Amino acid sequence: MGKYVYLFTEGKKELKNLLGGKGANLAEMTNLGLPVPQGFTVTTEACTKYYDDKKVIVEEVKKEIEANLVTLESLTGKKFGDPNNPLLVSVRSGARASMPGMMDTILNLGINDEVVRGLAKLTANKRFAFDSYRRFIQMFSDVVMEIDKKNFEELLSEAKAAKGVVHDTGLDAEDLEELVTKYKARYKKIHGSDFPQDPKVQLIEAVKAVFRSWDNPRANVYRMREGIPYSWGTAVNIQSMVFGNMGDDSGTGVAFTRNPATGEKGLYGEYLFNAQGEDVVAGIRTPKPISELESDNKEVYNQFVQLASKLENHYRDMQDMEFTIEKGKLYFLQTRNGKRTAAAAVRIAVDLHKEGLLSEADALLKVEPAQLDQLLHPQFVATALKKATVVARGLNASPGAATGHLVFSAAKAKAIASKAYPVVLAREETSPEDIEGMIASQGILTARGGRTSHAAVVARGMGTCCVCGAGECHIDENTLTMNINDLVYKEGDWISLDGTTGNIYGEKIETEDVKIGGDFETIMAWADKYRSLKVRANADTPRDAKKAYDLGAEGIGLVRTEHMFFEGDRIKAIRKMIVSKTKTQRENALAELLPMQRGDFEALYRELKGFPVTVRYLDPPLHEFVPQDKADIKELAKEMHIPFARLKEIIDNLHETNPMMGHRGCRLDVTFPEIAVMQTRAVIEAAINVAKEGNFKVVPEIMIPLVSELKEFQFVKDLVDKTAAKVMAEKKYHLDYHVGTMIEIPRAALLADEIASQAEFFSFGTNDLTQMTFGFSRDDAGKFLDAYYENKIFEQDPFKTLDQNGVGKLVELAAKLGKATRPDIKLGICGEHGGDPASIEFCHKAGLSYVSCSPFRVPVARLAAAHAQIKNPR
Amino acid sequence: MGKYVYLFTEGKKELKNLLGGKGANLAEMTNLGLPVPQGFTVTTEACTKYYDDKKVIVEEVKKEIEANLVTLESLTGKKFGDPNNPLLVSVRSGARASMPGMMDTILNLGINDEVVRGLAKLTANKRFAFDSYRRFIQMFSDVVMEIDKKNFEELLSEAKAAKGVVHDTGLDAEDLEELVTKYKARYKKIHGSDFPQDPKVQLIEAVKAVFRSWDNPRANVYRMREGIPYSWGTAVNIQSMVFGNMGDDSGTGVAFTRNPATGEKGLYGEYLFNAQGEDVVAGIRTPKPISELESDNKEVYNQFVQLASKLENHYRDMQDMEFTIEKGKLYFLQTRNGKRTAAAAVRIAVDLHKEGLLSEADALLKVEPAQLDQLLHPQFVATALKKATVVARGLNASPGAATGHLVFSAAKAKAIASKAYPVVLAREETSPEDIEGMIASQGILTARGGRTSHAAVVARGMGTCCVCGAGECHIDENTLTMNINDLVYKEGDWISLDGTTGNIYGEKIETEDVKIGGDFETIMAWADKYRSLKVRANADTPRDAKKAYDLGAEGIGLVRTEHMFFEGDRIKAIRKMIVSKTKTQRENALAELLPMQRGDFEALYRELKGFPVTVRYLDPPLHEFVPQDKADIKELAKEMHIPFARLKEIIDNLHETNPMMGHRGCRLDVTFPEIAVMQTRAVIEAAINVAKEGNFKVVPEIMIPLVSELKEFQFVKDLVDKTAAKVMAEKKYHLDYHVGTMIEIPRAALLADEIASQAEFFSFGTNDLTQMTFGFSRDDAGKFLDAYYENKIFEQDPFKTLDQNGVGKLVELAAKLGKATRPDIKLGICGEHGGDPASIEFCHKAGLSYVSCSPFRVPVARLAAAHAQIKNPR
Repeated sequence: MGKYVYLFTEGKKELKNLLGGKGANLAEMTNLGLPVPQGFTVTTEACTKYYDDKKVIVEEVKKEIEANLVTLESLTGKKFGDPNNPLLVSVRSGARASMPGMMDTILNLGINDEVVRGLAKLTANKRFAFDSYRRFIQMFSDVVMEIDKKNFEELLSEAKAAKGVVHDTGLDAEDLEELVTKYKARYKKIHGSDFPQDPKVQLIEAVKAVFRSWDNPRANVYRMREGIPYSWGTAVNIQSMVFGNMGDDSGTGVAFTRNPATGEKGLYGEYLFNAQGEDVVAGIRTPKPISELESDNKEVYNQFVQLASKLENHYRDMQDMEFTIEKGKLYFLQTRNGKRTAAAAVRIAVDLHKEGLLSEADALLKVEPAQLDQLLHPQFVATALKKATVVARGLNASPGAATGHLVFSAAKAKAIASKAYPVVLAREETSPEDIEGMIASQGILTARGGRTSHAAVVARGMGTCCVCGAGECHIDENTLTMNINDLVYKEGDWISLDGTTGNIYGEKIETEDVKIGGDFETIMAWADKYRSLKVRANADTPRDAKKAYDLGAEGIGLVRTEHMFFEGDRIKAIRKMIVSKTKTQRENALAELLPMQRGDFEALYRELKGFPVTVRYLDPPLHEFVPQDKADIKELAKEMHIPFARLKEIIDNLHETNPMMGHRGCRLDVTFPEIAVMQTRAVIEAAINVAKEGNFKVVPEIMIPLVSELKEFQFVKDLVDKTAAKVMAEKKYHLDYHVGTMIEIPRAALLADEIASQAEFFSFGTNDLTQMTFGFSRDDAGKFLDAYYENKIFEQDPFKTLDQNGVGKLVELAAKLGKATRPDIKLGICGEHGGDPASIEFCHKAGLSYVSCSPFRVPVARLAAAHAQIKNPR
Repeated sequence: MGKYVYLFTEGKKELKNLLGGKGANLAEMTNLGLPVPQGFTVTTEACTKYYDDKKVIVEEVKKEIEANLVTLESLTGKKFGDPNNPLLVSVRSGARASMPGMMDTILNLGINDEVVRGLAKLTANKRFAFDSYRRFIQMFSDVVMEIDKKNFEELLSEAKAAKGVVHDTGLDAEDLEELVTKYKARYKKIHGSDFPQDPKVQLIEAVKAVFRSWDNPRANVYRMREGIPYSWGTAVNIQSMVFGNMGDDSGTGVAFTRNPATGEKGLYGEYLFNAQGEDVVAGIRTPKPISELESDNKEVYNQFVQLASKLENHYRDMQDMEFTIEKGKLYFLQTRNGKRTAAAAVRIAVDLHKEGLLSEADALLKVEPAQLDQLLHPQFVATALKKATVVARGLNASPGAATGHLVFSAAKAKAIASKAYPVVLAREETSPEDIEGMIASQGILTARGGRTSHAAVVARGMGTCCVCGAGECHIDENTLTMNINDLVYKEGDWISLDGTTGNIYGEKIETEDVKIGGDFETIMAWADKYRSLKVRANADTPRDAKKAYDLGAEGIGLVRTEHMFFEGDRIKAIRKMIVSKTKTQRENALAELLPMQRGDFEALYRELKGFPVTVRYLDPPLHEFVPQDKADIKELAKEMHIPFARLKEIIDNLHETNPMMGHRGCRLDVTFPEIAVMQTRAVIEAAINVAKEGNFKVVPEIMIPLVSELKEFQFVKDLVDKTAAKVMAEKKYHLDYHVGTMIEIPRAALLADEIASQAEFFSFGTNDLTQMTFGFSRDDAGKFLDAYYENKIFEQDPFKTLDQNGVGKLVELAAKLGKATRPDIKLGICGEHGGDPASIEFCHKAGLSYVSCSPFRVPVARLAAAHAQIKNPR
């Protein structure tokens, strides 16, 4: 028999996996002597058990909950369901990792028809009592019984309309009592039975609902994005209620110990008088800044400042706290390490180190690598911004600039957003259901809600630009228009947001990349000091190469030479090669490509200033270079002066049933060795030319793609070596160069020991390796992968985060075999996983020498590599 | 320094790898005291060295050859290049495995302008001397200098025409002397320098030519088909010449100790008086049966009979011998274990056991498993044959019946032959260049040549029907016609051959499968006694299942259920399922398929009489069930009463970029669980129905295809288990069944330990596993695989013989991991490799429980499994 329930007095922060973050921190605050309304936590193991038991809370767990309830009653001196001295509780989710807003919460639980009267008498505040009951009915119905809350909002609106008032506060106790009757009637009409009066039934149903919410679609989407395993489950915290809505000496708020947008030290937050927490988070009323609490209630403010500081020092991190003031008494309802922007994360980490709270290594661990991406996100081009007109202002909730076409629903955003058609999502306010549409959008604009509203929190987490609480914007979802004063914007119109200032522009404004410095450079310098993995970039153009170099790349891990073949005259030359009938014709066509390709390589070598440049030889199947459409083929035939029928035949012959597994990669070099010969000439000639300039040494790395067999690699390497020797003799210049291979075919991984006898380096092409190891093509997997996520067969997109169990096994095997044959073999990764922090940690552990990723991910990779080394020293 | 040359007196049969088969056996015969013209063997290691040294025979090897030549001179008392007592030699290839006719031979080497005159004087036979010189010039020019032999044949024809004679024998000594002058002039004209007069130069060039011939295209094709590694190389035998063309007391021949077509005991062969060996093999003159030698020269015949019997007893196998009679003295030029038809192999093995020469196990090893296929090849349907008319007769060179369209060149045969367009190749005679066309043909017909001619030897080896030496057939390759008496057959006309009788029919005759028994049954019974691997068949229809059962299959290893979906109403039902918009529509469509599928399974269970039947669930992508052509889609739309545009859209949506890696296999069950539900219902209902008949127990095996992850397998298994439980409850009948998976995706092999926790059996789907492990699709690899074979990157088609290095590693790993989790896991293979003897030996060694192959391969597999066990006891 396990222990499934812990009193707050029994827990501690180290039990986060068992109690969830919220539960562990409530226990920790209790231990620290902070004023915390007491309660207990139903563990994450109970949640797992609930799912194992086919979604049933078994007697054993129920009994534990009830036993702890009795203890809580004695701790609080109140009694569950006792009208004369009622204990009310909140029921909240709390997973191991923070998932703000993704799961469910029920407040005021324990009220029923009797208790509400007792509560009215006890507090001498009938209005408060019925307001609480009303809220509870709505929340319980919504969350536990899945009755749409619109049902109750409708009744509330009717009541206000009947009385002719605008705000809820316009309704008095009797109005609310009547409303409760109507609420209960509506509940019965929809649900078929009376609203449950037994508080224990309410409690167990609420716990179940929270467990259930672990598996709701938005939680699943969020977990996938954040890489949180489904198997963790959530804990449930049952805490005695304190009331921020007991009058004007009561209130509730949310505050950070440092500014979560900038990292600036000092209390930062908002509060609302006479309100419950949900009012602040939901963004329905616009709250006051926390600083005003000082004048409102200096004593409480001072106590809060002091305890907040105590918490920050204790956790050695910026804290995000929820508090309630009940009749002038301060309570802490939650504390956690606060979510923050990348800029804030960087500043806070550096500051905490300066303040002596963190070592360099610990400070590094406070910055999430993936987050850095934010800092590298576009800003408006200054000159373009100068000409633009601000049409409205909102709160600067998440930094960065966004420009895109206006859409009014998350569904629409999700459906139409693309690189070619960027969108900005405008909503009255957002809610957790909107998560997928928010991910798809360039920027998010809301008319209501503060900096801690759903839109702001989520956008910051994603690094998406967000302006919120922009009251000037009147959004009409029916007519798909947004009115700002007398301007009208329709769906599809251009709109731009500045998440750093809160400015809104009714036009398209060009964006550009960010300049970074200061604390960021400090963090990067520390990261470089700690990491053992090298970081390179995948770059095909001098522009990308420069960007990569500027962002700290220590080489290019992948030049996709075919990307050079698509421009102007090049595509013509490659097409000439494709239609060639003889080897000589092919060689002539390739000769036209040679100077262009040589020029490209020279430029790359110069940008990299002596860092290694790994050139991958032609990889895609040849049909990618010719048109497929009849009209285009006709035009091309004319242009190339060959009969349409012949060109058509050539193109038809290039057709492949499974192009991913077709005539591509080094298979092209085996059938047309002249391709490898030309590419070698370009690589070596360029290297010699640049080396002769005398500024730095150039040691080209030649990478043969799609190898599955040593002899195949040897065949191409022989071509390379012969050609290189010839070029060096012609140029009378000796140059070192290395020939290696991609490991992207399972067989190459299995036979890596043999291949390493000839290959001087391996670069794991984990995109193709993932496709072939799983046996599904990225282009086609979309049709079924959603069903795999839904059924929890996969929890991660294997193309985003490396599948360590399967694909990773091949990577580890190949690394081991390669090193066995050639102990100094250089091992890298150039698939998209090379920029994914979790995958980088894996690469570190697998003993790779470097990762290579897109230029903008280089800082992310540098930091992730440092994390990997700190967590797993090697 | 190695030893690269062995005198015949230094070798023995156990040195076959070093000396080649021919060299080892010449040494063995020498040791046995047989009359063997002496000589020496340049080893296979010298050949390998020649290739390693970039096609040069280094001094070290040359010197060894020369030293042995000196020894040979003292052994024979003759001298190389000495006109007064000249030593002439033959230079012949001889690889570890017999490759008849694939490599080159040069006879009469050592003749020059002086030696020819000495030879004339010495033999008092000027005609013989100049005939030998003429032959040598042609052979040396052709083989060593690559001068087309047509050049010389032309001169020979001119000489005969000028003299007005038909046969070579019509030319006298002076004619031949003049011809030699013309030959040398033609040589000089083409080659640019005089015909080499130094015998040592002739010798070294000839040795080089033989080494070179190891790498000629026909040898490469042959090796690939026979699975002989390129790395083995060939030895070269230099043997003093004896002359069968020294007059009518001389001759040459080829004989077997038993009939190579039937296995009957007794000398079987042919000889020609006054001829050299090439005349017999080339099929230019039609030789006499060996039995006539008895009346021609009783003494020599008796000596031959006695020595042949000695050889057979010594080698404990049927011998294939070449002999020459020089002026009444018998010489053995070669002996080897003779190639034979399957029927002969079986009979000989059984007889040799009966004669006490071989144990059962050794007798089994004498029958090549792949050969058995021949026995199972079609014969003419008796009733159809009755109505057919024999238009000509030839020699019954290789048994079996063939019917197909007439073609007149191997190239054409190779180009157009297919299942739908079977061809019969008709040639004046065949030569080693024709090998690929011969492989592609159903049958081979030649107008000239005996039972040991090229066509006959090769056809027997391949098990292809062959009728040769059919002099009535006049073949004109220019007009593409064949005249038989006054009948004219054009290219494309139907023709039929009976390789067992030698009959030729000018029409199509239906063929049917062979009945087998007697010795074959004995061999099969022994095989079953020795083997430890079980043998199952892949069968989709009751007819195939019956065939499999009759041929000894111990179960069905693979029922491809989709093959049942293509007939009549079934394709309609599956199409209805595909166009369904809702799950209910899909279920209704599937409900139509249920009774048909259940009926199929019932029939399969009944045919297998209690042996296991493994049903693989729907595997191919759905687009395989719908038309792609616009007109066909229109028709289907009409038939299905849905708008064309909608059907077109559905079909377009099914399109996949890489269908091999697309939405197929168990991925269909994850997205449309109702498919697995229907198939389970069909499997279990059928099993219960047949089990209730009470004749035998039925334990269905359900196989989930394309699994890459445990949870995916678990998802489908849950559907199976739930449905099976439901069906059993409905039918009130309990049945055992097993659920397992294909291992055909690399990831499944890597994670086989996890998957085995739920899967009760694995069946290796090595077709797909090969594709994904190599990263090329079978459909597309044709474009580049030829270049891979040409460049020796691959020596075997990995789809024919399992790639043990790569794919095999995954099979071994999965087997090991699977057994670690579930020690009693059943392991099988159902890819096409399951019927390939080399792959079967691998499966045996990898510890598999069974192989599954096409029904006709079952006997092959049974015997191969026995070989595997005898060679690698487990």
